[in-house]
Amino acid sequence: MRVSDRSYRSIWLNEDGRSVDIIDQTRLPHEFIIVSLHTLDDAAHAIRDMLVRGAPLIGATAAYGLCLGLREGTADRDLERIGNTLTACRPTAVNLRWAVERMNVVLQALPENQRVEAAYREAARICEEDVQVNEAIGTHGLELIRQARAGKNNSEPVRILTHCNAGWLATVDWGTALAPVYKAHEAGIPLHVWVDETRPRSQGASLTAWELASQGIAHSLIVDNAGGHLMQHGLVDLCIVGTDRTTYTGDVCNKIGTYLKALAARDNNIPFYVSLPGSTVDWRIEDGLHGIPIEERSEDEVLWVTGKTGSGRIESVRIAPQGTTAANPAFDVTPASLISGLITERGVCPAGSDGLFSLFPEMRMKK
Amino acid sequence: MRVSDRSYRSIWLNEDGRSVDIIDQTRLPHEFIIVSLHTLDDAAHAIRDMLVRGAPLIGATAAYGLCLGLREGTADRDLERIGNTLTACRPTAVNLRWAVERMNVVLQALPENQRVEAAYREAARICEEDVQVNEAIGTHGLELIRQARAGKNNSEPVRILTHCNAGWLATVDWGTALAPVYKAHEAGIPLHVWVDETRPRSQGASLTAWELASQGIAHSLIVDNAGGHLMQHGLVDLCIVGTDRTTYTGDVCNKIGTYLKALAARDNNIPFYVSLPGSTVDWRIEDGLHGIPIEERSEDEVLWVTGKTGSGRIESVRIAPQGTTAANPAFDVTPASLISGLITERGVCPAGSDGLFSLFPEMRMKK
Repeated sequence: MRVSDRSYRSIWLNEDGRSVDIIDQTRLPHEFIIVSLHTLDDAAHAIRDMLVRGAPLIGATAAYGLCLGLREGTADRDLERIGNTLTACRPTAVNLRWAVERMNVVLQALPENQRVEAAYREAARICEEDVQVNEAIGTHGLELIRQARAGKNNSEPVRILTHCNAGWLATVDWGTALAPVYKAHEAGIPLHVWVDETRPRSQGASLTAWELASQGIAHSLIVDNAGGHLMQHGLVDLCIVGTDRTTYTGDVCNKIGTYLKALAARDNNIPFYVSLPGSTVDWRIEDGLHGIPIEERSEDEVLWVTGKTGSGRIESVRIAPQGTTAANPAFDVTPASLISGLITERGVCPAGSDGLFSLFPEMRMKK
Repeated sequence: MRVSDRSYRSIWLNEDGRSVDIIDQTRLPHEFIIVSLHTLDDAAHAIRDMLVRGAPLIGATAAYGLCLGLREGTADRDLERIGNTLTACRPTAVNLRWAVERMNVVLQALPENQRVEAAYREAARICEEDVQVNEAIGTHGLELIRQARAGKNNSEPVRILTHCNAGWLATVDWGTALAPVYKAHEAGIPLHVWVDETRPRSQGASLTAWELASQGIAHSLIVDNAGGHLMQHGLVDLCIVGTDRTTYTGDVCNKIGTYLKALAARDNNIPFYVSLPGSTVDWRIEDGLHGIPIEERSEDEVLWVTGKTGSGRIESVRIAPQGTTAANPAFDVTPASLISGLITERGVCPAGSDGLFSLFPEMRMKK
């Protein structure tokens, strides 16, 4: 996607053919800083401390992190150690495990001296596929936005609510939840996006708003509390969110607060869609609510807020009194019953095993 | 309630018998600053800019604001002008109108030269009654907490979720939603309060957490997104919130986001109670969703967050990129069907006209 006058992806291999560049997403929206990853530790740090985030981008970064790790040793035990280091960085997003397993399948079959080169090839392939997959998600999701457009006046925008950031910054390019939005914008459909702030890390305010502003798409930031009220008053036509892990039964684990918006959408008969690549499906877990590990992150994310002062300094401020502690579960699970459909690279399906297996029949074989 | 080693109310008449002191709630939790109101303008500013907030305290401040206004003129036209100035300060909380109307009924019946003294008497009565009413709410609500306690292990706390601040700072003393919590704490019932941050103004983080910390009641701050997840996992025993206006049919207007928590409570079979004095009931409006005016506040409340830096300065930081605008509806309406009961000074009743008229039969006559 374009940033100012240049086209970017969220991760790319440098010209040295070794190191990998990312956008430090903890610095957005106030600073656009590119960081180079040279080692496995660099990659693990980038994932753990959320310089990169979003299930697909975590997967892509893990793939390149494995490449960087292999430069220090290519034996089977190295592969195992590297994989363990990477998968331990974040517990919830399944793409992390998916990427490491995919890399391992390729690399374990090769002699050690071919592994580095093959790893870089496979990581690049994961990235290219992610871009294609997300663009396909966009094309399928565009049809849902067209449907929402039908019956509206010409001047009336389609009003889409999204939670957190599942835009191009959460993937290699295009995004999952925002890919349909970008496709609709390209197609000339007037849009207005309600951007949930998404406390505690405020990825809506800092990343989604920044993405939409960069692409010139109309949007309003709202607090996480406001979506239900907007839905009650007919101001939301559809919701589209991403996911960090979706069970094959259609339960959707996504950024904390997604469940509340899905409840409000159901209560107001508003379609609630989840965009995801097949790689975000966990084909092993049946019960999302009890089966998916929910990351508990530092209470400081709740107690402190970072932003830019009037005089231009980046500053963190504590919002709670001394002595108050916080709980910080990072994700919640929205049961399949609240979801209108899953938008995948192979089309839109009902949230459930029948729907997912109809689009991914090869996974039924593997179960 | 106690603050450090002194007992405070949220508003009180000074020894000069004229000016009124309040706690500047925009400065909490980092600074405890008392502000004196000397004129009608001072009172209007305190209400409009939320130095005082919370439906009952807004009512009490309006009553004293009327006293201050009368010092500049006591004619009927003055009464009307003062009343209009005050009721225009905030559109949603019905206690503002209630207090002005109650004062007017008393004052209009009196000759001009008796009005100032009578106004101070009536304002003091409104404050005293508020304290008694809230304590009675606490006593009735305590029984609900006792019920939640039954069947738990001795060591297990009753876990109560609350949204925004309906504590003693929102009233003259005791609070509405927190009155039962304070009564239960006094009664030795172990408690743990989940404190919703309550963006955009973060009254949970800045006021409710401060209140609970001051009284030594265990609590955790959570983002507004987290309550649903906690309920799904059995970590909430009951919800208690306040209200800015409740229709006689039981629809509850309260701080934006209340509706989302009520939806989650219903989805997880968790009792959802609303605490309110009779003065917060709007006996004229039948349909809360379409009848109650919802205040739209400045977008800056969404775009900026204020807190204390690590070095102790109070600072505001912008969380969104330049160019992003925000929408900021301040309240939402939770339909009566989602509410387990209303906790009033006269007892607990179902959310609906039958319940409210059974407790307030004199209001049926007036309709």
